[in-house]
Amino acid sequence: MNWKAVLTQYVKTIVESLYQSGLRHVVISPGSRSTPLAYVFAEHPDIQTHIAIDERSASFYALGMAKKSSHPVALLCTSGTAAANYYPAVIEAKYARVPLVVLTADRPHELREVGAPQAIDQTDLYGKHVKWSVDLPQPNDREITNTYLQKTCQKAFVVSQKAPKGPVHLNVPLPEPLIPELPLGFAKVPAYSHSNVGRLFPTDEMITEFMSLLESDKKGLMVVGELSDPQAQGRILELSQKFHLPVLADPLSQLRNPQAESKGTVIESYDTFLRFKERLEALKPDYVIKIGATPVSKPLTQFLQALGEIRYIVIDEGEHRDPIHRATDAWAVNETLLLREVLLLESKGNQNADWLKKWQTLNEKTKSLLEQKSEILPWNEGKAVQSIIRSLPSDSLLFVGNSMPIRDVDTFLHSQVQNLQVLANRGTNGIDGVVSSALGASTLHNQNYLLIGDLSFYHDLNGLLIAQMEEIDITIFVLNNNGGGIFSFLPQSEQPYHFEKLFGTPANLTFEHVVNMYNGYYQKVHNERELEEALQIVHSQGGLKVVEIMTNREENVVIHRELWNSVSQEMIDDE
Amino acid sequence: MNWKAVLTQYVKTIVESLYQSGLRHVVISPGSRSTPLAYVFAEHPDIQTHIAIDERSASFYALGMAKKSSHPVALLCTSGTAAANYYPAVIEAKYARVPLVVLTADRPHELREVGAPQAIDQTDLYGKHVKWSVDLPQPNDREITNTYLQKTCQKAFVVSQKAPKGPVHLNVPLPEPLIPELPLGFAKVPAYSHSNVGRLFPTDEMITEFMSLLESDKKGLMVVGELSDPQAQGRILELSQKFHLPVLADPLSQLRNPQAESKGTVIESYDTFLRFKERLEALKPDYVIKIGATPVSKPLTQFLQALGEIRYIVIDEGEHRDPIHRATDAWAVNETLLLREVLLLESKGNQNADWLKKWQTLNEKTKSLLEQKSEILPWNEGKAVQSIIRSLPSDSLLFVGNSMPIRDVDTFLHSQVQNLQVLANRGTNGIDGVVSSALGASTLHNQNYLLIGDLSFYHDLNGLLIAQMEEIDITIFVLNNNGGGIFSFLPQSEQPYHFEKLFGTPANLTFEHVVNMYNGYYQKVHNERELEEALQIVHSQGGLKVVEIMTNREENVVIHRELWNSVSQEMIDDE
Repeated sequence: MNWKAVLTQYVKTIVESLYQSGLRHVVISPGSRSTPLAYVFAEHPDIQTHIAIDERSASFYALGMAKKSSHPVALLCTSGTAAANYYPAVIEAKYARVPLVVLTADRPHELREVGAPQAIDQTDLYGKHVKWSVDLPQPNDREITNTYLQKTCQKAFVVSQKAPKGPVHLNVPLPEPLIPELPLGFAKVPAYSHSNVGRLFPTDEMITEFMSLLESDKKGLMVVGELSDPQAQGRILELSQKFHLPVLADPLSQLRNPQAESKGTVIESYDTFLRFKERLEALKPDYVIKIGATPVSKPLTQFLQALGEIRYIVIDEGEHRDPIHRATDAWAVNETLLLREVLLLESKGNQNADWLKKWQTLNEKTKSLLEQKSEILPWNEGKAVQSIIRSLPSDSLLFVGNSMPIRDVDTFLHSQVQNLQVLANRGTNGIDGVVSSALGASTLHNQNYLLIGDLSFYHDLNGLLIAQMEEIDITIFVLNNNGGGIFSFLPQSEQPYHFEKLFGTPANLTFEHVVNMYNGYYQKVHNERELEEALQIVHSQGGLKVVEIMTNREENVVIHRELWNSVSQEMIDDE
Repeated sequence: MNWKAVLTQYVKTIVESLYQSGLRHVVISPGSRSTPLAYVFAEHPDIQTHIAIDERSASFYALGMAKKSSHPVALLCTSGTAAANYYPAVIEAKYARVPLVVLTADRPHELREVGAPQAIDQTDLYGKHVKWSVDLPQPNDREITNTYLQKTCQKAFVVSQKAPKGPVHLNVPLPEPLIPELPLGFAKVPAYSHSNVGRLFPTDEMITEFMSLLESDKKGLMVVGELSDPQAQGRILELSQKFHLPVLADPLSQLRNPQAESKGTVIESYDTFLRFKERLEALKPDYVIKIGATPVSKPLTQFLQALGEIRYIVIDEGEHRDPIHRATDAWAVNETLLLREVLLLESKGNQNADWLKKWQTLNEKTKSLLEQKSEILPWNEGKAVQSIIRSLPSDSLLFVGNSMPIRDVDTFLHSQVQNLQVLANRGTNGIDGVVSSALGASTLHNQNYLLIGDLSFYHDLNGLLIAQMEEIDITIFVLNNNGGGIFSFLPQSEQPYHFEKLFGTPANLTFEHVVNMYNGYYQKVHNERELEEALQIVHSQGGLKVVEIMTNREENVVIHRELWNSVSQEMIDDE
């Protein structure tokens, strides 16, 4: 075979094998060495090709798509530091359990470590932060190479999807010339490398132990973070009703929506009422069932930490997550399957209706007081977040930035009448790549919103080009408090030394210019009335829209504390 | 000791030991976990603290400073993906041999791999791409810990400076609370951890063999890329004069300046005349001495590659760089010391004056034809680059972006009357981080310029915030050909399929808005007259100035080829 035919078969096999395994989206950053793979992806009739120039934004864009779809998305870049720009998103994908297939074009072996341009050592480039990494052979005409490529791509796909899901890395050495036979003329060929992944089924001991706990008179509590398996939601609600378990539902659990809340067991306002130390004793459970990722709320974490040596079961199909070192039982099992098996058994239930009632009452009261008290407070970030949440159309996707926005959403996302899907990058809680991640998720959804702080928005401004090039409809709410708002809640804010320089980070950024650069709609708002007006406009327009919400860092802190204190006071007065 | 005292001593020891070893600059990206170290750096009277929010830009900013000064610069960031954003710059630093001390704050061991927020596995985070990586112990009051920290920081500093210079990584686990005793009140203490690094001295065999080659009648050629040791420049000129060696001097060798050129051995226009296959036979040397990094010019690489089995000596104190696999001799030695030893010996010289003369004549003719022919061509990128080079004040620093700009500079940087320092990121030739790298170098210089393509400028737009926050004087010339201009020179441009989507990358970017965002001066130019006007203005102003130079991608290719062809034709006609 001549070189062109060898090269063509090689890249076609990689792309077709990934397609057969289930790949439907690839994000490509333009470059030279990746040329043959880029061509084949572009030619493939059933793989959607997305272009993003900045590899850092590109990788978070792919992450957002994969997060929204729970399905692997591929990345392709050229050799050199291009591939290193993927590192933050690869790490987020690992810890957030998002499947990615990272394809890095490489120079062939004779150009490695010899001072050749744009050549770095790309083997094991992502170290411990990918689930699997393989350096493919160069294109050649041995038939086994072809078979090996098929099976390796299939394996990469399976590994990325096995719990815990995560990133895999294929390094692809490509000698010149880099032009395959064109056009490729993909025929629909029969599948030869399907992939499919099972889930961990519970042992008999797990089921028996779990049931005996649930049927006992011991007071149980469920703590539910972001779930890898969305089917778990229904089971959690069913189980909690049957056995009177309050469900402390993190905003990312997707259980804070009207339908789930109507079951009566979902508790959403714990981030507020668990701040009141005087009432924690009455809320102490006999056992805790923790499912999913670590919740956002710090008061919840502190509450759980202070429980002492009670039974604490962490259910996790991946490595179990227990940053407070409380787990008495670590059960490596799929949560949906475990709950399903337990619910299939006959049970008399338990006598803990009062226990659940106590949590429900507290929750209802806190929610209504939060609304009521917030109403009379002056303009602040929390109030803006409340207005935004209220205004979102049903079935909106709300992507939330880290640091303050996700905490505000944790405080104020409750009692809404519409259904919302809430996503965030909580694998590593970075402020990087959030714009692009939100855009990735938006590519697969209709009504899209991002709530983000000014520093995080700045960090990924380059992502806005993707919104323009891919013509994505999204509204971005930027909470601009001129700097790292969260630091004002931390102890260093009380130190007089260097605070503004090191932590306040007053960059005096404002974003009208850059939004204009990417042809977006822009509106700056300074108060509730202006925000309401802007909300009217953005909900009725397509394309990129940015609403920049100006707040005051110091005031936000004071008002947040005031709100929690007044809610607390009123609840004590009432008793 | 109480915790605050332990923590304070721990971070103070790290910072003070680095200072004693020679550290004078640190670039800090704001974050929570790094708080105690940030405080100590800010308090230190003799370490300059720079703040940059986006860690990717921050790390290239540090790289630029370290590149300009040949001296280690420190980086500090918080835990999590913040540290991963350093990866592209760390890799560039490794291959470009730039010393960096990377400090990553980490969560303490009990928060690692347990699902804690903003905690990732940071041990060996940069894999093979740092020279040394160490995970420090937690702060404690054992006296040996203090001593260990001193010696470890000292070692890190030494390792980063030993040839080949490069990045080292200190991972610093810090438990809460994170506030040290303030103010720290640094007293000037006596040095206890100086560092100093020797250079590889030649063996007797090297000196003898080198001398016998030089004194023979064999025709020798020196190829000089970017030099790690600037002292080598004078020795190279002296040796080349004494032994009639043409010096093919890459723009980054710093030998293309009036003073070096006055010695008569520097050849700068080889990138043009080595394109003319018909004259290469007469230029074939009997041996080649290659010093420094791989040169930019592709015609030079092809010329060297085609030389066949001649003596080819690569002198390199680090791993020797020889992407064309031509080295017959790989000499691990410091080039300055080797040349110095050879020059100390008595020598009768050789009889090769004609050989040198041939190269000189060709060089002079090519340079004058390039000027002459370019004059009558229509407006294009190359012409803009010529105008810019001509206009720069003496002793300017010109940072050059990868892809087309560095190639244009290679073609047109010659015959200028003023002294220029030319820098570029040629470790891995990435288009990422170039703005920030240029700003870093500019921090330590007075007259600063950056020449960069539109995609590379876009890639590091976030760097512009550094220019604003650090109040740096710089003029940025953006060559905007609406996309990846270099691809138009590659074979894929002749394929009708997907070219614009995959390689042309027409993002239709223009940068007036974003320059306004960072309060810079902006001017767009479309022709020579407008460029000349803009040059008048920017040379007389401080702060951030951006001149966006609009050119046409296809025309640039055609005109470049036309220029080379007409120079070639005229030279043939003349013979």
